[in-house]
Amino acid sequence: MGNRWKTCLMAAALGAMAVGLAACAADDGADESTRAQQDTADAGIHAPAGTMDGDGPAAADGAVAPAGSAPASAPEVAGASGGEHDNLRQTAASLFGVIPEAPTEVSGRTVTPERVELGRMLFFEPRLSRSHVITCNTCHSIGTGGADNVPASIGHGWQRGPRNSPTVFNAVFNAAQFWDGRASDLAEQAAGPVQASVEMNSTPELVVQTLSSIPRYVELFAEAFPESEGITFEDVTIALEAFETTLVTPDAPFDRWVQGDDSAMTANEIEGLQLFFETGCASCHNGVNFGGQSYFPFGVLERPGAEILPVGDKGRFEVTSTATDEYVFRASPLRNVALTAPYFHSGQVWSLEEAVAIMGTAQLGRDINEEEAGKIADFLRTLTGRQPEVVYPILPPSTPDTPRPER
Amino acid sequence: MGNRWKTCLMAAALGAMAVGLAACAADDGADESTRAQQDTADAGIHAPAGTMDGDGPAAADGAVAPAGSAPASAPEVAGASGGEHDNLRQTAASLFGVIPEAPTEVSGRTVTPERVELGRMLFFEPRLSRSHVITCNTCHSIGTGGADNVPASIGHGWQRGPRNSPTVFNAVFNAAQFWDGRASDLAEQAAGPVQASVEMNSTPELVVQTLSSIPRYVELFAEAFPESEGITFEDVTIALEAFETTLVTPDAPFDRWVQGDDSAMTANEIEGLQLFFETGCASCHNGVNFGGQSYFPFGVLERPGAEILPVGDKGRFEVTSTATDEYVFRASPLRNVALTAPYFHSGQVWSLEEAVAIMGTAQLGRDINEEEAGKIADFLRTLTGRQPEVVYPILPPSTPDTPRPER
Repeated sequence: MGNRWKTCLMAAALGAMAVGLAACAADDGADESTRAQQDTADAGIHAPAGTMDGDGPAAADGAVAPAGSAPASAPEVAGASGGEHDNLRQTAASLFGVIPEAPTEVSGRTVTPERVELGRMLFFEPRLSRSHVITCNTCHSIGTGGADNVPASIGHGWQRGPRNSPTVFNAVFNAAQFWDGRASDLAEQAAGPVQASVEMNSTPELVVQTLSSIPRYVELFAEAFPESEGITFEDVTIALEAFETTLVTPDAPFDRWVQGDDSAMTANEIEGLQLFFETGCASCHNGVNFGGQSYFPFGVLERPGAEILPVGDKGRFEVTSTATDEYVFRASPLRNVALTAPYFHSGQVWSLEEAVAIMGTAQLGRDINEEEAGKIADFLRTLTGRQPEVVYPILPPSTPDTPRPER
Repeated sequence: MGNRWKTCLMAAALGAMAVGLAACAADDGADESTRAQQDTADAGIHAPAGTMDGDGPAAADGAVAPAGSAPASAPEVAGASGGEHDNLRQTAASLFGVIPEAPTEVSGRTVTPERVELGRMLFFEPRLSRSHVITCNTCHSIGTGGADNVPASIGHGWQRGPRNSPTVFNAVFNAAQFWDGRASDLAEQAAGPVQASVEMNSTPELVVQTLSSIPRYVELFAEAFPESEGITFEDVTIALEAFETTLVTPDAPFDRWVQGDDSAMTANEIEGLQLFFETGCASCHNGVNFGGQSYFPFGVLERPGAEILPVGDKGRFEVTSTATDEYVFRASPLRNVALTAPYFHSGQVWSLEEAVAIMGTAQLGRDINEEEAGKIADFLRTLTGRQPEVVYPILPPSTPDTPRPER
């Protein structure tokens, strides 16, 4: 798939229109909607019945706007009449789709209410960290788009992590987790920061010892994982994953527009969407999360400066040790991107417009001018969905057996 | 008042019973219930009509069990018959009382829904800190009894603060804030950590500049403070105070018991309450928060070791520069104390039983044995009330004008 997308990327860089992009996929023998569905299936996600393929022109509905039937020229952007945007809407529905309801199963693991509730507690549980100060929410805050709005997260000992914190919102729809995709799902992801010395700096053993010392947690784990013997670290990560599946942000203006509500996006935002196709953004940023599905080299056409693309961070190469994966990163998901500055894995760009322009130069070999970048950024702001409503959990107190915090 | 309480304290240390304690206050020409009411009025709190003086045998109800009418000997603890505990209950109602509803006015400032809602956002707002990492909730977490369960809070640059973080829950009912009472109310308190270099390390100017750069905050401040011109730092603290008034924890087992529900406390817990009087705990830890009303020297009879009472922290002396205030601290409020280990301003004691025993030696000149400490601790656990239900606020994004985080 990597090579196919690089080919498509180049086509996009040469000015291919939306239909051209769709044709890239069609050339590969699969229509876009099928592909989107496939990607979601690859990620091991099962939506509740009637959700992903029942709500009108959603991405995963194979019956809607298969790419092969896309019009032969890019739909024009003009007045506000719904009919005029039908082609654009169908293409967008096909390539992206609307945020579905929270999935009920991930990687074969059922999302139960008991696990979600336990995961909510663990997401805000400072005792998962060695210091008893850092929680999942510290770097993936519910209040700030599921990220932390600093260049790179501050962790144990005020150390700075190597990369910008990706949003946890809608992350369940990504094909893999982390900037380099090194975790295949959210449970695997959750195990990382807990142990990273620059983040929570704990160990699976310490986490299990800590939670096992608290009777209420022992009860809650027994209820959520009746087949496990006592609390296991794996179950900790599965509970976190279960809670995180609920952190989806439906009902963005884009979603409403793509479902037929003409008033949900302005003419300017629709022009931005058109430009998102025309400039080639959509060749990497596609699927329901507008990204998060595939990997691409950052700087495919012109490598950004070392501030934005630090030489020492070789991206996916560190996972695969494959030379062609040097400086390769997962295409960043763009849902709620207006809430998650600063941008890129280095977190060095604060303006969405500037980020768009950098992508033009680095990835598409194209100068995206200020007006175009402004329109694309305006479109991207329509990807801000309804933010999750999360009640702060009340955590059970420690006991004499609970390991003390270490600074 | 200080001298009066010191006298009472000594009386208690000599083994005075509950009635003796009540008599201390009566000697001063005021019955306990009036005094409790007065303390609350001193703190500038106005409860909603019908709350503080309408809900049965609450502390502030002058008609219930004035201390002067207390029985001449300590009520005995025996079986479960309600009648047997009537005296104890009346004394407890008089000296403590139940947690009232959230006040509607503090220090002459009206608590409006707009201020509460804005304050909720600010309480979880990392941009009040220079790093954009630390929030009020970091050290006063909603999930962990309104405190942070570490010896002393970790702040900017992973610095450790000088004292254990006091709970924000029910703090509105304290006569003054901080361990040394240096802030007269919650608004004054809120201004402290925002500026402390070891905590949030910001400045009033930076906070105002930051919030003023975010249009949504400009709107919300205008709605909450229509008479202010733009966002002011004082209004930030008033909004935080307004939110914090809602962080009250009613309906603790003790409250239900004192209101007549015999089943709310076990015989063991009732014995603990009896011991709380008999050993003299109640001479300092009284009022609706079981503390938070007056100041006392830590180590009045035997100074604890330097680990628990560090020589360098002279307590209220640092506020008043009065020699007699050396090592003087506010009597710690004991509501929800089971959730807020570790204990004392130094945060060096993790066990409630141990803390009780230390108080016996240091303050009361009395060896509280293991059985007694256990019962008193069991009683203290009945002070855990219904914890606040707080929805995590969604915060508006920064703009190009927002000052960037500084690490």
